[in-house]
Amino acid sequence: MSVNKNMPKMTMPEPTLRRLPWYLAYVRLLERRNIEYVSSTQISKEINVDASQIAKDLSFLNIKGKTRIGYEVSMLVKELTDFLGFKSRHTAFVIGAGSLGAALMQDSGLSQYGLNIVAGFDVDPKLIGTHVGGIPIYDMAQLAQRQQEYGATIAILSVPVEHAQEATNVIVSAGLKAIWNFTPFRIKVPDDIVIQNTSIYAHLALIYNRMSAKMK
Amino acid sequence: MSVNKNMPKMTMPEPTLRRLPWYLAYVRLLERRNIEYVSSTQISKEINVDASQIAKDLSFLNIKGKTRIGYEVSMLVKELTDFLGFKSRHTAFVIGAGSLGAALMQDSGLSQYGLNIVAGFDVDPKLIGTHVGGIPIYDMAQLAQRQQEYGATIAILSVPVEHAQEATNVIVSAGLKAIWNFTPFRIKVPDDIVIQNTSIYAHLALIYNRMSAKMK
Repeated sequence: MSVNKNMPKMTMPEPTLRRLPWYLAYVRLLERRNIEYVSSTQISKEINVDASQIAKDLSFLNIKGKTRIGYEVSMLVKELTDFLGFKSRHTAFVIGAGSLGAALMQDSGLSQYGLNIVAGFDVDPKLIGTHVGGIPIYDMAQLAQRQQEYGATIAILSVPVEHAQEATNVIVSAGLKAIWNFTPFRIKVPDDIVIQNTSIYAHLALIYNRMSAKMK
Repeated sequence: MSVNKNMPKMTMPEPTLRRLPWYLAYVRLLERRNIEYVSSTQISKEINVDASQIAKDLSFLNIKGKTRIGYEVSMLVKELTDFLGFKSRHTAFVIGAGSLGAALMQDSGLSQYGLNIVAGFDVDPKLIGTHVGGIPIYDMAQLAQRQQEYGATIAILSVPVEHAQEATNVIVSAGLKAIWNFTPFRIKVPDDIVIQNTSIYAHLALIYNRMSAKMK
């Protein structure tokens, strides 16, 4: 399994982990502009996070800023990319190759962040045996067998909500280790399975509500 | 502009707003199973939220549960769908019709949640003038003109990170009201513009990190 070996043993607070990709996005931008050094104060101005918080967050990484000069941009890009696991390769299956699932299979951006989608799964006979973005779609009944074959560790869950828990149970018994849940359903898993909920449709409700509030 | 008229004047706490789509997903499931009533205790068992919290959350809606019987499922589906704005139509542009942008244009699921993507925009001459999922892709330079034409209010931002702020400025001056930011960049907007960040790639870092922690 390809997990980042550079990850330190200490546990990083989740809010820090959520901020690191913001810093990475910004310092990648600086790198493209051939800027060599950046201070936490400069990052702070762009990102809207306190400079002291940024310095604290970055102290979890294997990098030190220089007084009055700041961090070396290329080192910061490298350390953040490594730390966030974007350089490692993680093998993933898409479970539910309908609209959103098929869309994710076609998003080549994911592979730039370390995620290799190698197969899709569905129960629809019209989808089974076809390809999306060059990636084969198999029968859901073959999940355990294909997991052995591909060694996938991450399942991207994009089935209709009424099948979310049932599909989750199949994923868990097939031996996958993490579920990236794109359904709005609160799936239940054993303690040793990692879950990340990304309910993009639920975010729409937040947008609509805020728009409505601004119009009052 | 199509904003939900049923939205109450009082401000709902954001954590409540984030939980409502979970309840909706579950009660839709019950509706499909022809179940007529559900109590907050039953929802609690499925969703892993305190029953008293659920009752409190649902008290923001125009619906009352009956003692010992609970909420009428069909009413709950209707009220939640209305309240969350999923029944209204919101017109959206995709800004940046690359990999993720094109994927979102092909996700018909979004229209089920009230979002109509009517056009995509890009600066790449190879993309301008083509269609993705039947939706036209226009030159980014036409954004203001097309906004007038379509009356779009929501911009889905899926440009490369180095163009995120620049594209945001164009979106704001074209008169759109909300930006659904799929880039990991912390864009800056005037106070009257709604922002929702959905950095799906950043969620990958959370998954990798938790997987690594579970393996220790």
